[in-house]
Amino acid sequence: MSIRNMVLIGSGNVGYHLGRRLFEKGVPIQQVYSRKLDRAKELANLIEAEAINQWEAIQSTADLYILAVPDSTIASVAKHLQSIVDSKALVVHCSGATPSTVLQPYFSRFGIFYPLQTFSKERPVHFEAIPICVDAPSKSDSQLLYELGTRISQSVHFITDTERASLHVAAVFVNNFTNYLFHIGHQICEQERVPFELLQPLILETAAKIQEKKPLNMQTGPAIRGDASTIERHLLFLGKHPEYHRIYQLMSQAIQHLPKA
Amino acid sequence: MSIRNMVLIGSGNVGYHLGRRLFEKGVPIQQVYSRKLDRAKELANLIEAEAINQWEAIQSTADLYILAVPDSTIASVAKHLQSIVDSKALVVHCSGATPSTVLQPYFSRFGIFYPLQTFSKERPVHFEAIPICVDAPSKSDSQLLYELGTRISQSVHFITDTERASLHVAAVFVNNFTNYLFHIGHQICEQERVPFELLQPLILETAAKIQEKKPLNMQTGPAIRGDASTIERHLLFLGKHPEYHRIYQLMSQAIQHLPKA
Repeated sequence: MSIRNMVLIGSGNVGYHLGRRLFEKGVPIQQVYSRKLDRAKELANLIEAEAINQWEAIQSTADLYILAVPDSTIASVAKHLQSIVDSKALVVHCSGATPSTVLQPYFSRFGIFYPLQTFSKERPVHFEAIPICVDAPSKSDSQLLYELGTRISQSVHFITDTERASLHVAAVFVNNFTNYLFHIGHQICEQERVPFELLQPLILETAAKIQEKKPLNMQTGPAIRGDASTIERHLLFLGKHPEYHRIYQLMSQAIQHLPKA
Repeated sequence: MSIRNMVLIGSGNVGYHLGRRLFEKGVPIQQVYSRKLDRAKELANLIEAEAINQWEAIQSTADLYILAVPDSTIASVAKHLQSIVDSKALVVHCSGATPSTVLQPYFSRFGIFYPLQTFSKERPVHFEAIPICVDAPSKSDSQLLYELGTRISQSVHFITDTERASLHVAAVFVNNFTNYLFHIGHQICEQERVPFELLQPLILETAAKIQEKKPLNMQTGPAIRGDASTIERHLLFLGKHPEYHRIYQLMSQAIQHLPKA
């Protein structure tokens, strides 16, 4: 059995890049559904699919339905789909945060197809390196999703709901919180009229190092050196920003608790 | 006037890469000083310089002395040098954290030559993109350092002590604290037996986005979405790690205070 007939629900950042990559790799998508027809069309035109914005227009006999929709709407979309699609259809969602079991009340065959990356429409992505996490209660569905994954990426992984939940927490630290630290750096530069560009190569190298080395072995800075006078000077500087001050203090304390290399 | 005759004090990560880059670009270094002679030799051999580990062996008539030593030793190294070098010598240090004025008691001509990057000996660096921050109380010295910067980088900037102090605080956030967040992600993966490799492309993309976009506009995740149930689930997951729990809570609160895009 293989997947020949697919419907993509959602044309946001994930749906957009996933749909384009599947099409590029010769995996055809018949329909793209979005509440907003122009959004559906934008993607559908690129991947030779039909754009729809009516539930009733969704075909009932596709092999696979991919839900690339916000976490908060997965359950309600699933509920809508249930009455439309064939009871034997395989339905997956693309979220890192939501368990697969949210689909269980609605479908006999369900699973996960989760590309672990941050997507923005305007940025091209190197899909072959993006980890695709797949899971399904049925072994054959799981295998089917794995094979679909290998069509678009060289990094496909069977990841259970529990493992994916942990990965998602880790991703919040390394992506969302990291971006917030970049924002703090940006704000400090703006306020002090220093170009943020000066920090960009440093940011890139900090991330590049981690592609090869354990973060623990890459830790540098005043906190790990136990350089109390620099920490004190920085905290004084941050006095006008209680939030930055608290983050600086907490992170520095945590770093000082690291095991010495 | 130009710099023809240089002595490099220190052969740690900064000294090593800076020395090699200067040599590559045809800027000769006569001597490399390190307390440990084998360390001095390792670099000196690569850049056709003399390796020394005795203060008395330092030549007195170089045009420029570059102090690539830890912040905590800059002042004591300067004190040693003072009695050795010609009173007209220009002496600079390479630190982001220490004001240039630490050199003032010892030399009539002093300044900063600060490559803003994180260096590890074993990683090659793309020096042409590394911002070099230069400063000196004398305009002609400042210009001299600027010109030296342009020999090794396309990104050279006049940055005052005050500006550099702000940059250094910002660098702690975007580099040291970011690396610590990577460490948390690594720990979570290790504990849950999920390969950290799954997060590496995400980490790289998070940094790559910031090369073009404002971090504020790139903020994603449960906190910025106001997704209280995901935040609660994550905090529960982090219950066994009080430190990670506190960081998660504080960062999420801070992100929720961001102005809406």
